[in-house]
Amino acid sequence: MWYGPGDIRWDKRPDPRIELPTDAVVRVVAACVCGSDLWTWRGARPPADPHPIGHEMVGVVEEVGAGVTTMSAGDFVITPFSISDGTCPHCRQGITTSCSQVQWWGGTDRDGRTLDGCQGQYVRVPLADGTLYPTPALPDPAQIPALLTLSDVLGTGHHAAVAAGVGPGTTVAVVGDGAVGLCAVLAAVRLGAERVIAFSSHTDRQLVATGFGASDVVSERGDDGAAAVRDLLAGQGADCVLECVGTKVSMTQALATVRPGGRIGYVGAPVGGAELPLGKMFSNNIRVGGGLAPVRAYLDELLPDVLAGRLDASAVFDLELPLEKVAEAYAAMDGRRSIKTLLWP
Amino acid sequence: MWYGPGDIRWDKRPDPRIELPTDAVVRVVAACVCGSDLWTWRGARPPADPHPIGHEMVGVVEEVGAGVTTMSAGDFVITPFSISDGTCPHCRQGITTSCSQVQWWGGTDRDGRTLDGCQGQYVRVPLADGTLYPTPALPDPAQIPALLTLSDVLGTGHHAAVAAGVGPGTTVAVVGDGAVGLCAVLAAVRLGAERVIAFSSHTDRQLVATGFGASDVVSERGDDGAAAVRDLLAGQGADCVLECVGTKVSMTQALATVRPGGRIGYVGAPVGGAELPLGKMFSNNIRVGGGLAPVRAYLDELLPDVLAGRLDASAVFDLELPLEKVAEAYAAMDGRRSIKTLLWP
Repeated sequence: MWYGPGDIRWDKRPDPRIELPTDAVVRVVAACVCGSDLWTWRGARPPADPHPIGHEMVGVVEEVGAGVTTMSAGDFVITPFSISDGTCPHCRQGITTSCSQVQWWGGTDRDGRTLDGCQGQYVRVPLADGTLYPTPALPDPAQIPALLTLSDVLGTGHHAAVAAGVGPGTTVAVVGDGAVGLCAVLAAVRLGAERVIAFSSHTDRQLVATGFGASDVVSERGDDGAAAVRDLLAGQGADCVLECVGTKVSMTQALATVRPGGRIGYVGAPVGGAELPLGKMFSNNIRVGGGLAPVRAYLDELLPDVLAGRLDASAVFDLELPLEKVAEAYAAMDGRRSIKTLLWP
Repeated sequence: MWYGPGDIRWDKRPDPRIELPTDAVVRVVAACVCGSDLWTWRGARPPADPHPIGHEMVGVVEEVGAGVTTMSAGDFVITPFSISDGTCPHCRQGITTSCSQVQWWGGTDRDGRTLDGCQGQYVRVPLADGTLYPTPALPDPAQIPALLTLSDVLGTGHHAAVAAGVGPGTTVAVVGDGAVGLCAVLAAVRLGAERVIAFSSHTDRQLVATGFGASDVVSERGDDGAAAVRDLLAGQGADCVLECVGTKVSMTQALATVRPGGRIGYVGAPVGGAELPLGKMFSNNIRVGGGLAPVRAYLDELLPDVLAGRLDASAVFDLELPLEKVAEAYAAMDGRRSIKTLLWP
């Protein structure tokens, strides 16, 4: 539960139960803390009242409503960070985050119900058929951290790479060495990029980036960082830049690093009223795409690779804590003592 | 020659001659006035001094420098609106407008030479091999207006469609009913769009749009215009919106008209310090791409269709004048009495 800036508490909530026929109740097997949770924690996006928090989990279905058809009790499920019906035009076009019935973990539904957060023991999941993604079988417990990254960060990093048009032979630079940026490195490598350059000045994160297949690491920032990328690419900017932070500084870095005619894929939630300089984009033919990642829509493509062990982003979890130590998890991530913290209920 | 706001004169200039071995001298067969010339004419982009103007022409090569290898005297050539070497990394990537040696008609080169404008009788063309595109044979004179559109507006409209990812089955809305917007309609139809909706409130332009294959015309603007598009598309926004004006109003129209997950291709030169609202783009996954069109790079694809008569944008020329009446041409376009005016030297 979030109580106020810097104040996260392990607290009691009523046990969730089926309230609508499209609901499921899920027992959380693993959850984690997102960089965007930290913005809430710091108070940059103040909600009205104390509320449950967390939007990433995997778990086991405990019970389903009468209208749920694609899963049953005992199924292991991936839970994307947004709730969607799977049937509206936007969902059918793969933009599940723009679902006409979209709801958000820890938010409020149209009828005024408070939704559970995923940092908990049990969660009521609305629109279960559209939202949850059952795995074909119960997974090996050792794969749970890798599966948990499908809930947000791996799908989000993949979205940045897709939005930037990463493909075989492309050169890629990744701005942001948080869990999403590191997953973007992994996604770009998976999509066949010829060269993947990670911006990072932290040794622990550099090691994860190179472990994920980054060909180069650039520790400089700003114009020096952009120049270092050009030095690596025979004097040219990168074909694709993946912006995985969401600040004006990070987008400026992306714009300085991309080549004329290149493409920026961005997934960092813009903090404050960020705007893009259209004139600079125009004269250099810079394309900017991306946004709030429809991670649910990518599970068909990504889950088989994770289950087969070909795609494993679990190295972003460098700290694991029991759920009751959730406050410590936030503090560790805020203090950059942890890239991403996994919580075991 | 441009002398000042509203002051274009038919004036004398020295006959051009070869100054560099990479030059050609071209006799202008047909030229025309661009919407962006009007911004100069109005004084919105003041240059330092009176200067030659115009950046669209087709013509016949009179003479080539010793270093020119791909054309010779007597060849008919298309002249793109920017001068490029064809060999630098950006040119090889198809972004000829970002050429490392890019120069602009009517501007000044690195050595201080004033470049000719294309609204003239003869023009010195720097970097002739990279810039000019010879046709395989002398064209039928009746095709000259259609060929002239390859100099800017047709390639620019095509760029908007390419940048927005128009393809078979897509729904498209076009903002802007100037010559570029009308060419964007034609380009979208050519690329297989299922539905092409043109925003236009002028009967003459609506007729050209439907002649180019627009399936629908919307005369409303703003939120009413966006609502009219959704009414035509079963309640959804368009997959692709082609922004062909360059004002804040037109980009706002584009953002209001595109569906979540959709793509805006923009080619309207941004007037003033236009910025894009990143937060709105983020939450709806709106991609924005385009810019200063590399029309030279599209000639391989577009010229054969024009020569074969399958692609003809010449209907944008609704007024033809002798070159000496150039001032009348600007006044007619500024007063919206002409969509685009062709000038015969």
